[in-house]
Amino acid sequence: IPSKLPDVGSTIFTEMSALAQQCQAINLGQGFPDYPPPEALIHAVNEAMLQGHNQYAPMTGLPQLRQAIASKVQGQHGKSYSAESEITVTAGATEALMSSFLALTHPGDQVLLIDPAYDLYAPAIRLAGAEAVRVPMQAPKPGMPAFRVDWERVKSAITPRTRMLVLNFPHNPTGTTLKPEDLDALEAIVSSHPILLLSDEAYEHIVFDGQVHLSPAARPLLAERTILVSSFGKTFHATGWKVGYCCAPVHIMAEIRKVHQFTVFSVSTPMQAGIARYLGESNLPAELPGFYQKKRDRLASGLEKTPLRPLHSEGTFFLLVDTKALGSGLEKELALRLTREIGVASIPVSAFYADPEHPESNHQLLRLCFAKRDATLDQALERLQGLC
Amino acid sequence: IPSKLPDVGSTIFTEMSALAQQCQAINLGQGFPDYPPPEALIHAVNEAMLQGHNQYAPMTGLPQLRQAIASKVQGQHGKSYSAESEITVTAGATEALMSSFLALTHPGDQVLLIDPAYDLYAPAIRLAGAEAVRVPMQAPKPGMPAFRVDWERVKSAITPRTRMLVLNFPHNPTGTTLKPEDLDALEAIVSSHPILLLSDEAYEHIVFDGQVHLSPAARPLLAERTILVSSFGKTFHATGWKVGYCCAPVHIMAEIRKVHQFTVFSVSTPMQAGIARYLGESNLPAELPGFYQKKRDRLASGLEKTPLRPLHSEGTFFLLVDTKALGSGLEKELALRLTREIGVASIPVSAFYADPEHPESNHQLLRLCFAKRDATLDQALERLQGLC
Ligand SMILES: CSCCC(=O)C(=O)O
Ligand SMILES: CSCCC(=O)C(=O)O
Repeated sequence: IPSKLPDVGSTIFTEMSALAQQCQAINLGQGFPDYPPPEALIHAVNEAMLQGHNQYAPMTGLPQLRQAIASKVQGQHGKSYSAESEITVTAGATEALMSSFLALTHPGDQVLLIDPAYDLYAPAIRLAGAEAVRVPMQAPKPGMPAFRVDWERVKSAITPRTRMLVLNFPHNPTGTTLKPEDLDALEAIVSSHPILLLSDEAYEHIVFDGQVHLSPAARPLLAERTILVSSFGKTFHATGWKVGYCCAPVHIMAEIRKVHQFTVFSVSTPMQAGIARYLGESNLPAELPGFYQKKRDRLASGLEKTPLRPLHSEGTFFLLVDTKALGSGLEKELALRLTREIGVASIPVSAFYADPEHPESNHQLLRLCFAKRDATLDQALERLQGLC
Repeated sequence: IPSKLPDVGSTIFTEMSALAQQCQAINLGQGFPDYPPPEALIHAVNEAMLQGHNQYAPMTGLPQLRQAIASKVQGQHGKSYSAESEITVTAGATEALMSSFLALTHPGDQVLLIDPAYDLYAPAIRLAGAEAVRVPMQAPKPGMPAFRVDWERVKSAITPRTRMLVLNFPHNPTGTTLKPEDLDALEAIVSSHPILLLSDEAYEHIVFDGQVHLSPAARPLLAERTILVSSFGKTFHATGWKVGYCCAPVHIMAEIRKVHQFTVFSVSTPMQAGIARYLGESNLPAELPGFYQKKRDRLASGLEKTPLRPLHSEGTFFLLVDTKALGSGLEKELALRLTREIGVASIPVSAFYADPEHPESNHQLLRLCFAKRDATLDQALERLQGLC
């Protein structure tokens, strides 16, 4: 069997979670909470099943959920998408991304990724027959505490074959958020280069220090070429429910739907019905930034008593730590060692680069997930405080 | 936006279901029951949510569900698949099919479909960069009441570029099942042509008149090249839950998993946990053939008082009806007319052919779904009895 993805193995998340389980380590690797979704949401899904919402949903999603998404996005970004023709419910953000790549990129096309980049983008682009072109962010350095996009470099990477740029802010794994200047830079780029923007905003409701989440969908010049992708997994502490969505102008959405209908056809009806009902009643996203900011600060301040130096996280539920005090070497080897010897699993940031073993992919950084109960974070910190 | 699927619109199921709703017609088109899944199954999913099964499942599926699938398939076909490395839980059979096409077919490859063919296969093959080659079944004729595969024609369609043959038995839409002679013919074909067999067995538990469902997985010579795909939607009256699976030898499964992890990553955890628990306790599939056989017979005998002549259905929850007594014309137009004028929606069989408007795609047949309460079937029959 010749392989379509010869150099792809299990994702780093699968690998580190399996190792964490095997070593009974505290799993700060793969990003998922160790607390449950709201009881009222579980109740709403159960009610949906009991009330008969168990057969195929419409291919595009339940109308009441699409309507709830339209209102949410309008409230966030002032952008009005048609629930009828511009919003589709997907099997998590993952399926929205895969269906978008399959629908919108053609053999020979190039798609720009900003490195470090979430691990699914490049193989999904390859499966669509297109080519991923990777533009590194500026890594933190003295005087610049967080990763930043180098828009000049993005611009120089554009060729006549560039079909699309993938954005992912709040950024996994670096925690960087988009600023108004970033959107300005994007506007300048698209006014001379008519590329699509695929904006993966899974962490949209987790931004810190009084920031407001910015999306390219908020700027008309960008919105007309943006596919906004998100999901409910991180927002509702239910990463395993796999309900996501995408929003895009009608002529783009028409192409995504053509593919979505053959990728999964439709998404779990009771989950959709339950989420739609809950969205009408709850205000969880309003509490979420404060909830996670406290966890970020708890982890960051606990790390002061360890050799690991936390970088600044502006959003997401991830914090990068600088491990240079522990000596040099491959990040991945350090991550494996900490899991086995100290009992704390993390994700090496190098796994988000094209070639994890290339020296330029190795900033000696590990990613820690702080979507954990305070007791879990404290226990992990205790273990890490044993490091020297 | 240049289209990857320029000649694809909404599926016929979406189109007919929307029209049925608009006309308040009885929907015997898209295949889904109008009764709920077992209460104990709903209860098991609710318990799973309450007990904390809400975060990412392993990419391959929950171990207890893969184990339950392994036992089920072993019991059905005497074929033992490794739950660890040869079974993957997917977002319905649809995602298993899409991931299989993406993983196993390459640009330039040909994939054989047996027409009439379920509507997702051809576009999914195209998205994978391969080419669908369609081999028609023998249509019913005087003395031969049901569609049959013409294995000689299948064999003649094989070229050096043929990578795969798609099987779908019990067959949607014709209701034809596989017989031992079909498996013999397949064995003869693969011993001279080393192609893969993708076997979509979504209706595996719905076969009539004392038959036992046959799968190529039951024959070692076929099993080594077979991807067995199925789902729980039809078996548990829960088409909207979207939990399916595929089984294949380890080297084939490794390639499918590489793609699956980027198509959806994982499948709803509470649904998986609930189904796994229910599978350990229930015997629904044992009752299913009798349950559906009664419905088939109720519909077929009621049709005797109409101008529609039922063909013989050996499995699935579909029955084809010959509409010649209503005059000639496009099947699709008749289906639209019956929905609007009589209030009964169906699916034109021509929609399962490459070119629905080609005369050879038009046998003047409509597909009726009998997965409906007896009262619903009786009401539909009453309306159809008004036809003349
Ligand atoms: C789909 S598993 C990966 C979860 C995640 O988003 C992350 O840990 O970055
Ligand atoms: C996924 S919608 C189509 C349902 C079905 O299997 C059918 O009606 O043939």
